[in-house]
Amino acid sequence: MKVIDKIRKAEEEGRFFYSFEYFPPKTPQGVQNLYDRMERMQRFGPEFIDVTWGAGGTSADLTTELVATAQSVYGLETMMHLTCTNMPVEKIDNALKAAKECGCQNILALRGDPPKGQLNWESCENGFSHASDLVRYIREKYGDYFSIAVAGYPEGHIDSPDQESDMKYLKDKVDAGADLIVTQLFFDADVFIDFVKRCRDIGIKCPILPGVFPIQNYNGLKRVISFSNNHVPQRVWDELEPIKDDDAAVKEYGINLTVEFIRKFREAGINGFHIYTFNLERSSRLILERLQLVPDTESIKPLPWNPSLTAKRAKENVRPIFWKNRAKSYIQRTESWDEFPNGRWGDSRSPAFGELDGYGVSLKYPQQECLEMWGHPKSADDIAAIFAKYCKGTIAGIPWSAQQLDPETEVIRQRLAAINLLGYLTINSQPAVNGAKSSHEVYGWGPKNGYVYQKAYIEFFVSPQKLDELIAKISKNPQVTFHAVNRQGDLKTNTQSDQPTAVTWGVFPGKEIVQPTIVESTAFMAWKDEAFELWNEWAQIYDRESETAKVILDVMNSYYLINIVMNDYVDENGIWKLFNLEIDGDLSAKLMGSQ
Amino acid sequence: MKVIDKIRKAEEEGRFFYSFEYFPPKTPQGVQNLYDRMERMQRFGPEFIDVTWGAGGTSADLTTELVATAQSVYGLETMMHLTCTNMPVEKIDNALKAAKECGCQNILALRGDPPKGQLNWESCENGFSHASDLVRYIREKYGDYFSIAVAGYPEGHIDSPDQESDMKYLKDKVDAGADLIVTQLFFDADVFIDFVKRCRDIGIKCPILPGVFPIQNYNGLKRVISFSNNHVPQRVWDELEPIKDDDAAVKEYGINLTVEFIRKFREAGINGFHIYTFNLERSSRLILERLQLVPDTESIKPLPWNPSLTAKRAKENVRPIFWKNRAKSYIQRTESWDEFPNGRWGDSRSPAFGELDGYGVSLKYPQQECLEMWGHPKSADDIAAIFAKYCKGTIAGIPWSAQQLDPETEVIRQRLAAINLLGYLTINSQPAVNGAKSSHEVYGWGPKNGYVYQKAYIEFFVSPQKLDELIAKISKNPQVTFHAVNRQGDLKTNTQSDQPTAVTWGVFPGKEIVQPTIVESTAFMAWKDEAFELWNEWAQIYDRESETAKVILDVMNSYYLINIVMNDYVDENGIWKLFNLEIDGDLSAKLMGSQ
Repeated sequence: MKVIDKIRKAEEEGRFFYSFEYFPPKTPQGVQNLYDRMERMQRFGPEFIDVTWGAGGTSADLTTELVATAQSVYGLETMMHLTCTNMPVEKIDNALKAAKECGCQNILALRGDPPKGQLNWESCENGFSHASDLVRYIREKYGDYFSIAVAGYPEGHIDSPDQESDMKYLKDKVDAGADLIVTQLFFDADVFIDFVKRCRDIGIKCPILPGVFPIQNYNGLKRVISFSNNHVPQRVWDELEPIKDDDAAVKEYGINLTVEFIRKFREAGINGFHIYTFNLERSSRLILERLQLVPDTESIKPLPWNPSLTAKRAKENVRPIFWKNRAKSYIQRTESWDEFPNGRWGDSRSPAFGELDGYGVSLKYPQQECLEMWGHPKSADDIAAIFAKYCKGTIAGIPWSAQQLDPETEVIRQRLAAINLLGYLTINSQPAVNGAKSSHEVYGWGPKNGYVYQKAYIEFFVSPQKLDELIAKISKNPQVTFHAVNRQGDLKTNTQSDQPTAVTWGVFPGKEIVQPTIVESTAFMAWKDEAFELWNEWAQIYDRESETAKVILDVMNSYYLINIVMNDYVDENGIWKLFNLEIDGDLSAKLMGSQ
Repeated sequence: MKVIDKIRKAEEEGRFFYSFEYFPPKTPQGVQNLYDRMERMQRFGPEFIDVTWGAGGTSADLTTELVATAQSVYGLETMMHLTCTNMPVEKIDNALKAAKECGCQNILALRGDPPKGQLNWESCENGFSHASDLVRYIREKYGDYFSIAVAGYPEGHIDSPDQESDMKYLKDKVDAGADLIVTQLFFDADVFIDFVKRCRDIGIKCPILPGVFPIQNYNGLKRVISFSNNHVPQRVWDELEPIKDDDAAVKEYGINLTVEFIRKFREAGINGFHIYTFNLERSSRLILERLQLVPDTESIKPLPWNPSLTAKRAKENVRPIFWKNRAKSYIQRTESWDEFPNGRWGDSRSPAFGELDGYGVSLKYPQQECLEMWGHPKSADDIAAIFAKYCKGTIAGIPWSAQQLDPETEVIRQRLAAINLLGYLTINSQPAVNGAKSSHEVYGWGPKNGYVYQKAYIEFFVSPQKLDELIAKISKNPQVTFHAVNRQGDLKTNTQSDQPTAVTWGVFPGKEIVQPTIVESTAFMAWKDEAFELWNEWAQIYDRESETAKVILDVMNSYYLINIVMNDYVDENGIWKLFNLEIDGDLSAKLMGSQ
């Protein structure tokens, strides 16, 4: 969707709106961290995010990758920066094409800084000289497909001879087809308010978003202002002086100053703002909290998982539960599908999942961090202890999940830890929910005034012997269905057909039932390759001949992966009866206390 | 499905099974009554029904119509009788073709009685002489498509010279391709058991169903036995003698005798029986009750409405709620669809409903009965009183529904009656259900161990003035959605899109969510033509110039038809708050007491 349309809508509804700016990190680990951060920050409800242009080569590719992932995996409305620096028109074309392909409809068109090592800006061969040329080119070539933003310089661009010609350049950019202005950072609210006035005076009518930058530390501020020669009012220097060596205090000051600015803008009738996050999370969160801009469930969780914003997947509203912690891999492995399940899984006729390849399966932490988290397990029991630690939140991840357990699993966290210690190595789960309101803080999703439901689900690795015991128990309960498979692909199940089972659904006013998450055997078989391969990845961080590598590979080669659905969601604790856990009883208390 | 396959399955599962035989009634009213009866008797769980062949002309057409309706509207597995009497091979072909077209896969092949007025049986020109010829012909022409049953005569066919040749004829029929024997009636259980033994002795291996006939009255018994010269044991005569003038006592005796027979058969290892219902309901019901053969919800209500058994509609599992009391009309008006909604309404792309024509809209009672029920209303209030009477069960039907209110509306019956008196003329409704077990006696449907839900729904005619008041009230409740339309087609609605609303759904182990009933605007617009036209039909039973006709036509031309969904099914009484009815309060008590 075009950002300009979202802004118009927010303005019509008279509500605040805001956006986050990120830049492409320098390391793969940094990229992974940024993705995690984007996903978390999505819950703060930004109207859109933007990603700066990594001028030239690999860095530019990374921008397009970040944009595509934000758009398709995290479902964030994304704006891609695009500069003229070192960009002959063919490269511009490629970048625009890539943006369009992933469903991104928003470009921030910039001239850009001079190339590294050059003092003055010069256009490259067959390139553009001004942002306005780039805007005009995009409009000519793509018509109305893109929303085009341009930069505004409240204090004037450093290369401009005076403010008057600076305003003229801005007007040129808007006249060339830009529909939104996002300003560079500034440290004086009045400067921005005056800037808006000057824009309106010369006939610029499009929305103007102030770019706000919560000061993170004193030296950082000095560095930032040196780039554009920003004016910082004496008052700010005076207030910073006594705390300049206390980073925490400076951060707190930066947050309060930003909040003060935004309140001032609101009084002046400006309801949107753009945060330069510098890829950080905390300050943005605190600013929004202090402004009481916590979004409602409806706007940030249309479904229990993040829907893609790519055109092809626009109607997708059913996914298997298995990739819950690996959404990116799911998106990639289903990229070739012509149709995505919509309404029910059966709509997509026998979807073929893409093969695993390098990108699909890798640990999301660098080796050293993995070793610190997981140590050197010497037995299946040691491995079980690692899984249990993850459930308790003592370590940050396991190979199957680089994130802490979902808030929704809080209620089952202790029991999950307990069964891991018993040798059921859990990698995915959700508790039963019997009709929570769709606005529920933890379980809620979808439109207002609805109810959401979940069947209890649990997925884990288990030894063949324990599997047999479990299947014997399951056979006595007609409400429990399961699929179990080992690495070789031997499948055991008690389901009678290939029919999917809905495990998450919602009932809303004026709608058909929405059932966004299912359990189904074909998808499970595609998932199991990935799930087993992650043992291999884990083993590879150790010496091939080590005891640890051997025990991990032994588990990989002998254990089964099983998923269990407790179909009776009304009996919210029913699933735990399968595990010799006396709920609220002695054994359970002992187990939970023992770790 | 083939009856023989159903029988084999029942035998494998070691359960009792039974079937009902009906004959084509002589009057249109009789046909309507039979349909109602078939639908009610479906709840007794027959494995199949059969319809006798109305030899020749109109009567034969009626048989094929009854078969098609039972199969497609009521979803009853149906067997069509077919005789050789007066049936040249072209007619046989037509009958078989008609059966196949409506999804009927079962033929009971008979020679048939001699044509009326003839004493001895003779084959017609280009026709068959023996049932075995007919069986052979069907097998040759249709291969395995049909299950073919033939008649067995425990006491020997009246035309057979002796029992030995009679057995030989039977063996011929089986050898020609019959896979099931249904016997003629008899009054001595031992005769049947002996017959089965003799069949097995000469190598007949297919299932043999005893045809049982609960004696209805003394003279009827005498007439029945005169046709085939049946033997009635002296004991039965003796027991009937003292009660022969007391019809009720004879019926009771007939029921007990049949139950005794069936118990005896069961001891002999025969688990199925076929009831000659003579189009009556009560005796069959009592026999089944006394044998404790009340079927479970699962087997008789796979969905809240009766799914068709025609091949084309095999996957259909979503219907609009509007035709709840006029299923036949729905089937007819959607006959031309290539695909039927399955999983969700959206699957069937913009279905076009067939136009109304003669068969679609007519009163289901003869004029005299209508006049007795509805009298001569002289005002809108008089009309409202008729609707209220129907809700209270004082009269049997209204033009929109020829049946008593569903058992499920029992809980809202008093309130329905009350709002009718207030001028809201209800024609369809269902109460809210928040997760009843799928085995629930009243609300249950679908597989075992599931839960079923309903949103409260109500549909009624209302004056424009009352409509405005209602819409004002609805606008204050975000949980209520409605569509209102007058005869001219002016639509008012508060729904934002054409999306359907699910009003009945079920959650079952190992399945996606099933949502068999929806409310949707296109379907509603198709329904409203029919709903308004029924006022016209009603008016036509009166003199055109009469006050009654005028008042009815005035309502037709000025009122709106409105459907209301209370989306919050958790608030089970929420819908009533729209009607100035103080629930459990004074006004309500007064209104309910006043009629």
